[in-house]
Amino acid sequence: MSSSRPRRYAIVGSGALGGYFGARLHHGGCEVHFLFHRDLEHVRRHGLRVDSRDGDFSIAQPHAHGWPENMPTCDVVLLGLKTTENHRLAELLPPLVRGGAAVLVMQNGFGIEEQVAAAAQPRGPIVGGLAFLCSNKVGPGHIRHLDYGQIRLGQYEPRGAAAGITPVMEKIAADFSRAGIPIELEEDLRLARWKKLVWNVPYNGLCALLRVTTDRLMSFGPTRELCEQLMREVVAGAAADGRVIDGDFITLMMSNTDRMVAYKPSMLYDRENGRPMEIEAIYGNTLAAAAERGTRLPRIEMLYRQLQLVEEVGSDWATKRPSSSNFQL
Amino acid sequence: MSSSRPRRYAIVGSGALGGYFGARLHHGGCEVHFLFHRDLEHVRRHGLRVDSRDGDFSIAQPHAHGWPENMPTCDVVLLGLKTTENHRLAELLPPLVRGGAAVLVMQNGFGIEEQVAAAAQPRGPIVGGLAFLCSNKVGPGHIRHLDYGQIRLGQYEPRGAAAGITPVMEKIAADFSRAGIPIELEEDLRLARWKKLVWNVPYNGLCALLRVTTDRLMSFGPTRELCEQLMREVVAGAAADGRVIDGDFITLMMSNTDRMVAYKPSMLYDRENGRPMEIEAIYGNTLAAAAERGTRLPRIEMLYRQLQLVEEVGSDWATKRPSSSNFQL
Repeated sequence: MSSSRPRRYAIVGSGALGGYFGARLHHGGCEVHFLFHRDLEHVRRHGLRVDSRDGDFSIAQPHAHGWPENMPTCDVVLLGLKTTENHRLAELLPPLVRGGAAVLVMQNGFGIEEQVAAAAQPRGPIVGGLAFLCSNKVGPGHIRHLDYGQIRLGQYEPRGAAAGITPVMEKIAADFSRAGIPIELEEDLRLARWKKLVWNVPYNGLCALLRVTTDRLMSFGPTRELCEQLMREVVAGAAADGRVIDGDFITLMMSNTDRMVAYKPSMLYDRENGRPMEIEAIYGNTLAAAAERGTRLPRIEMLYRQLQLVEEVGSDWATKRPSSSNFQL
Repeated sequence: MSSSRPRRYAIVGSGALGGYFGARLHHGGCEVHFLFHRDLEHVRRHGLRVDSRDGDFSIAQPHAHGWPENMPTCDVVLLGLKTTENHRLAELLPPLVRGGAAVLVMQNGFGIEEQVAAAAQPRGPIVGGLAFLCSNKVGPGHIRHLDYGQIRLGQYEPRGAAAGITPVMEKIAADFSRAGIPIELEEDLRLARWKKLVWNVPYNGLCALLRVTTDRLMSFGPTRELCEQLMREVVAGAAADGRVIDGDFITLMMSNTDRMVAYKPSMLYDRENGRPMEIEAIYGNTLAAAAERGTRLPRIEMLYRQLQLVEEVGSDWATKRPSSSNFQL
């Protein structure tokens, strides 16, 4: 691809995450093409708008597309869908990766790059992006950026080896830096994903299950200890995968969470809004990876089973059923 | 005590359980004295009424008391309070056990007889009664009996040994049988309590936590398996306490539960009605007994921690708080 034109991004999933980073990249000098679904007509008419605590910004005439087939060949495909939509990857990605584009997978959980590799067989590299971002979609083409916004990047290697720092990672990092997005490069994507799970596994699941914000879990002794136990199981899973995370990292995650105020993780947010939760990406895939290596993680498995039932039952099933009886059991 | 007068029972906690069994014992020929709190005046005026699927019955002029000090010396004190009221035992029991009455502890959970022994130091024996009863209090002095109603009895021995079948158990069994209450005697109370926990531990806690009836847990693979895993941990706790429960018993409990329809265990019922749940009796005491014997039960412990948070937070705390944010974590 010629260096005379700006670097080109395709945003698949232009919501709270993809819309936010895409709009920033646009203002950083990239040519950004957004794939929209329901919001297409609205965005074509009214543009894309981000209300940010760092200053509001917008794109009056974004490159807005309704079908991946209509999008031009890009350098990077930024995957910003929720993992619960990943059954659509085999339909969405192939037209976009034909030209050798890198896929930047900005999704939660474990084993996600494997899904992308299987669904699209891209000729270019797959890079994992771990976002620490707090944003909401508040209306069609309208995003509210509340806090944070940094990214960690690591390149995917098929057999889970560390890829080191690669040229494609450095190019993406340059694009993001120019756009004012803090970015760090990781030599070992898998280690980075395990480390993110140390936070995601206790807080996403327990907050969604118990319908509480992080501060409640942390200020109550029994659940504070449970968070730490779940973190230790993630560390055990990482160890079985040959990744060493030392105890100080757990201490750091605990104290970072102590400093957050009344946090509502994405899974609780999804549950409250009647949307599917990312249970497979965060729990199912993690447990499967550990089990493949002969390691069982009983508390994470229990949380997984509980969350699956919550999803199965739906939000208000129980309260709508007729009361049966008080059994002295 | 003379054999010329009928056997005398004091019912402490004259609600869905104590009121039901007390009224049956009255019709079986015992002299039954009920301790009431809020319902005293209503019962004195309107009597005690049981609507039962086996035929309704009532007592127009029950012996209704407001203070244990006013009750006569009895042969048996039937303790029908919820365990969450057991902080009142030291005040309620001593006046009733002075004459050497047996205490029949008809409460859920583990380690309950120890609490009675510590609170009241009764001179008579302590007998544990495990009730399989489905009844509700539907109004003052008004009980609805929905299903079941059988009892298992075993005598308490201070160091947890099996007491065998004792004369006091046989006398109580004769009273209950005359009243038409199915009753079985157990040589080893502790084994009987562990066996009841095999059912209580998975279903009470998971149903209350997830706000579902038993059929939902059983018809969904992941939680069905979790029920079985929790049962196996109870069996491990029993084994550490020298009590052998074989695998067939788990199979039996699973298939018994399969045959129940849409069951709502007492703990879910309590949660829905904003009443304290019997978390310590069923979980805290059980875990403590296992820990004393060097055995950890990780899934039961996790459920205990989760239920404690539910109780701490109260039923609707989370949904009433302002929404914070959607964190991509």
